[in-house]
Amino acid sequence: MSVPAGNLLAGLPSGSLRDEIFTTLTDTASLSGTVRIERILSTGQASPDGFWYDQDWDEFVLVVLGGARLQIEGEAERALGPGDWMMIPARQRHRVAWTDPAAPTVWLAVHIGAQKPPQKIRQGETA
Amino acid sequence: MSVPAGNLLAGLPSGSLRDEIFTTLTDTASLSGTVRIERILSTGQASPDGFWYDQDWDEFVLVVLGGARLQIEGEAERALGPGDWMMIPARQRHRVAWTDPAAPTVWLAVHIGAQKPPQKIRQGETA
Repeated sequence: MSVPAGNLLAGLPSGSLRDEIFTTLTDTASLSGTVRIERILSTGQASPDGFWYDQDWDEFVLVVLGGARLQIEGEAERALGPGDWMMIPARQRHRVAWTDPAAPTVWLAVHIGAQKPPQKIRQGETA
Repeated sequence: MSVPAGNLLAGLPSGSLRDEIFTTLTDTASLSGTVRIERILSTGQASPDGFWYDQDWDEFVLVVLGGARLQIEGEAERALGPGDWMMIPARQRHRVAWTDPAAPTVWLAVHIGAQKPPQKIRQGETA
């Protein structure tokens, strides 16, 4: 399953450009027409061992500040820093392997077609 | 017309919290089920004098880097910096009054229910 990803802060010019540059990151039809955008603040939390998010909606995530590692099932962990984004398709199993315990990590998440808020995972709980 | 707005980087803790904090910024039904997320890179551009964006879809915008001033019709200009976000409802006339000419400004925009890409405005052109 393809997971489009990129860094919002990559390839910045050193001077002024004549025009703004509009880059479409993702253009998708939603499941239900419901969109929920949220801030997630992490301070070292991660998904419990063996836990996978398995959502029936697409989720766009952006790290605005801090650092994290996100794992797509069957892949190595991906390190994410400020500006890194991922578009996680519905049913793509994934977990948060690590967030920086030394400083806050701020995410922007756009839940596209979400029927309900994502399950809240607490450290030390089983899913 | 209400324009929910906030700063993603406000109120950060100095240490670790027991749990992550999930904050819903906006929870809305879209017009069409189509969601488009884009990066916008500005290097001093602004909307031409007298021009207003007047879109038939909701748009969430976030300043990830840099600085800008956004004007909602009938209001004073609002200064936006890194982390500042706004949810601009459909039909809410607005314009970009200023972006920092000295350094790049990176926006994240989520177009909710957009039927087509937003009109591209070039400096010096009339809308």
